[in-house]
Amino acid sequence: MTRFALTLEFNGGPFLGLQRQAQGPTVQQTVEEAIFATTGEKAILHAAGRTDAGVHALAMRAHVDITKAIAPFRLMEAINAHLRPAPIAVIACEEKPDDWHARFSCVGRSYCYRIISRRPPLTLEAGKAWHIIRPLDTEAMHRAAQTLIGYHDFTTFRSVHCQARSALKTLDQLDVRREGELVLIETAARSYLHHQVRSMVGCLALVGLGRWREEQVAQALVARDRKALGLNAPPEGLYFTGAVYPA
Amino acid sequence: MTRFALTLEFNGGPFLGLQRQAQGPTVQQTVEEAIFATTGEKAILHAAGRTDAGVHALAMRAHVDITKAIAPFRLMEAINAHLRPAPIAVIACEEKPDDWHARFSCVGRSYCYRIISRRPPLTLEAGKAWHIIRPLDTEAMHRAAQTLIGYHDFTTFRSVHCQARSALKTLDQLDVRREGELVLIETAARSYLHHQVRSMVGCLALVGLGRWREEQVAQALVARDRKALGLNAPPEGLYFTGAVYPA
Repeated sequence: MTRFALTLEFNGGPFLGLQRQAQGPTVQQTVEEAIFATTGEKAILHAAGRTDAGVHALAMRAHVDITKAIAPFRLMEAINAHLRPAPIAVIACEEKPDDWHARFSCVGRSYCYRIISRRPPLTLEAGKAWHIIRPLDTEAMHRAAQTLIGYHDFTTFRSVHCQARSALKTLDQLDVRREGELVLIETAARSYLHHQVRSMVGCLALVGLGRWREEQVAQALVARDRKALGLNAPPEGLYFTGAVYPA
Repeated sequence: MTRFALTLEFNGGPFLGLQRQAQGPTVQQTVEEAIFATTGEKAILHAAGRTDAGVHALAMRAHVDITKAIAPFRLMEAINAHLRPAPIAVIACEEKPDDWHARFSCVGRSYCYRIISRRPPLTLEAGKAWHIIRPLDTEAMHRAAQTLIGYHDFTTFRSVHCQARSALKTLDQLDVRREGELVLIETAARSYLHHQVRSMVGCLALVGLGRWREEQVAQALVARDRKALGLNAPPEGLYFTGAVYPA
């Protein structure tokens, strides 16, 4: 048995999320079927994060245990061949020790959230960003974001379906910057609650639109109440960008 | 009657090209139908370039003549509303004098061509770039590209269906640069022959792959023979990026 770390890139649009479920296609099921087609083994894919329906990944980390003797490069090539035409690709593959776990060994996760701020509808970016028609004050968004940095109870920014035992999390980074009509929000933390990034982005967007004052973001945090949430941003703007492991 | 200049952004994937034709949906037909739904007028869309099936645009310039009194902003909004869900958007609209012509007044056109150079299949970039699996020597591509700059007979780089009277054209810019796994080719000229950009990119890719020596690009040009063409790059990597008009 060899443990392989896989780095996955995917367009989340056609999937009900990463984690396997009965109601429809998921990234996990699609990758596991490609592994079965490659090795004849029913391997289980363990991923660093559980992205929701419609959420994308540039570099999701995951692992699988495989009995068949196969080199990492050949495994990657075979999985990719069997994944076609699903919009999922294995972009890196390496052997790991048996105690390396994509989820439990992970000590840092990063996401970016893409907003296109303009009046006309999206064409080439449809499904790849949140389209906001009215102008955004990105400097106010960035200042408000800084009030969420640190160790806090993030109950307000947590889905009612969140299964984490505690809502106490440390947020390390939440930066907002503009590149033309693109507004990019980059965030990093050890881990996140379910819907935390989309909930934070939704409230920052309200600040950007002038519908919330900057200090209302900190007030929503202190409220520790899901009802204090302003807005949950849609999934199509969210990208899992990386997972960090101890050296 | 008022002449309106429209700037169009579109995903060329679902269309048989810009110019209207009987066999299926085109950008021209789709925009003209949205204008008819807005004004009740059968206006004709004149565009700066005639992009092929699958070719995209970030800023195609075009014009239409409309009798109904309507402000540019309201016209843009109404056309965009009627264009949904087609992946075409009017991103700018302004009144122009009657002698301003999107095609005949245009004195410069620019395109970019996007190649993703990597082994794994494309996911989020599928349909938006040419996927080349083997490594590309982009410095060799750039050097070879410079041998095409200037006033030349571009017969080799011209589709057999090209309707231009002369194959003599002046190429002003053809730059190749790398940004990570993205290889970006930017080009500018007063005008191009049919398939010229894709034909030039195809030959540069052969150089990048090491299948052509750099000097074979200049040799193909001098041959003035379509049979000397190495490869026509696929449409999904090509973007019309801008049209220039006299001040």
